[in-house]
Amino acid sequence: MNGPVDDGGPADGDGPAPIVGILGGMGPAASADFFAKVVAATPARTDQDHLRVLLWSDPLVPDRSEALLHHGPDPTARLLHGARLLVAAGARLIAVPCNTAHAFLGPIERLAGVEIIHMIDVTARHVAALDPPVRRAGLLATTGTVHAGLYQTWLAAHDVEVVLPTAHEQERVAQAIRWVKSGRRTATAARAIAEAGERLVARGAQALIAGCTEIPLVFGQGDAPVPVIDPTRLLAEAVVATATERRRSIAG
Amino acid sequence: MNGPVDDGGPADGDGPAPIVGILGGMGPAASADFFAKVVAATPARTDQDHLRVLLWSDPLVPDRSEALLHHGPDPTARLLHGARLLVAAGARLIAVPCNTAHAFLGPIERLAGVEIIHMIDVTARHVAALDPPVRRAGLLATTGTVHAGLYQTWLAAHDVEVVLPTAHEQERVAQAIRWVKSGRRTATAARAIAEAGERLVARGAQALIAGCTEIPLVFGQGDAPVPVIDPTRLLAEAVVATATERRRSIAG
Repeated sequence: MNGPVDDGGPADGDGPAPIVGILGGMGPAASADFFAKVVAATPARTDQDHLRVLLWSDPLVPDRSEALLHHGPDPTARLLHGARLLVAAGARLIAVPCNTAHAFLGPIERLAGVEIIHMIDVTARHVAALDPPVRRAGLLATTGTVHAGLYQTWLAAHDVEVVLPTAHEQERVAQAIRWVKSGRRTATAARAIAEAGERLVARGAQALIAGCTEIPLVFGQGDAPVPVIDPTRLLAEAVVATATERRRSIAG
Repeated sequence: MNGPVDDGGPADGDGPAPIVGILGGMGPAASADFFAKVVAATPARTDQDHLRVLLWSDPLVPDRSEALLHHGPDPTARLLHGARLLVAAGARLIAVPCNTAHAFLGPIERLAGVEIIHMIDVTARHVAALDPPVRRAGLLATTGTVHAGLYQTWLAAHDVEVVLPTAHEQERVAQAIRWVKSGRRTATAARAIAEAGERLVARGAQALIAGCTEIPLVFGQGDAPVPVIDPTRLLAEAVVATATERRRSIAG
């Protein structure tokens, strides 16, 4: 609303919901999926009922898992660059559709001066509120997300235990994610993820978290005998709810 | 590359392809579809092989057909605002995934100082190059696009005649587009569009142009006995080709 560029346009009084920024590109297909889920989660009958969204798809963000596991380049500077780009263009609320990137978001919110809707937090709250209750949730995610302990930390706060793949199973999940990112062997990737999910269910998982934004592209509700949780969709719904709430509080 | 915001980030030498701007929100679901098609059209094996894309989804752009048909608010100022926002954030190449909006793009390119890849031009060239040759192409589009004569003008330059729905059929196509935009009655919309397409084929159309970005969401290749042309996909391919070409010429 007070971004430097916004001043050049028509009066903003006609659309008081904050501009939603999407810090994406990790990967690009997952960002497209997330944006589509934001659109689908918006109650709208015409174009004009939708939110203003600015999506920055930046494939130059260094690999998050490489940074966490093998001392690869730190993605923080590039993520901060993206957040600042979005804020400069008017975004007042940011979503990051990449689970692993959440290991680096700590300083971004403060340094960029913008609110970030936290996907892992949103997902943990959702899992904790499931009925029938879930006390053990299986995690399908990148090796970086697993090692960073993101879901373990946030779910422990709700007394939910995380069931992890074995090292061998995890390597297969990571390979499947790389296939989805490359657009190749998608069906093979889907089967590998479903198999890893079955093992987690056999070891007591009462729900499965599709904890990498590439996974919901090939694996969803109905692909397992327990609920499949899609953090991308939950983040989209949280973004729409928060932006709508802001619109209401500004209008009131 | 020399946008004010880009200077705050890491050196751009690591990704010399120009930032692609998407001036979208007309409608938002069509913009999501377009961005997904850009990602799919990019030859990439890892996240890092993709293009940097900035998508501005602005649902506040006044209805394009209303402006063309019923003296509704002119969308030009809002489109120019969006183009300038994208340029200020670093975009050097812009795509507008809305056919009807192309009736207003004339001044935008010059006033915003940025190259716009023209979807109607790209589509007309594609139709003219089809083999076997197409001399009569059916048009499924908004009433605004039909009245603005966009496809008629660009295809005439290639000696391709446009076959239009009758006024009654056109009203059904326009209603179907509104349904897709609202996310309601999608299957009914798909059937209405397929029926309108059949009438055009019966009147001599040798190909059908899905000339509104909402139409490819529900109607595609294989849904008609003639080729179905998807301008959204053609625009995505043209954007990727142009950006890749620029990367090469900068690198060389």
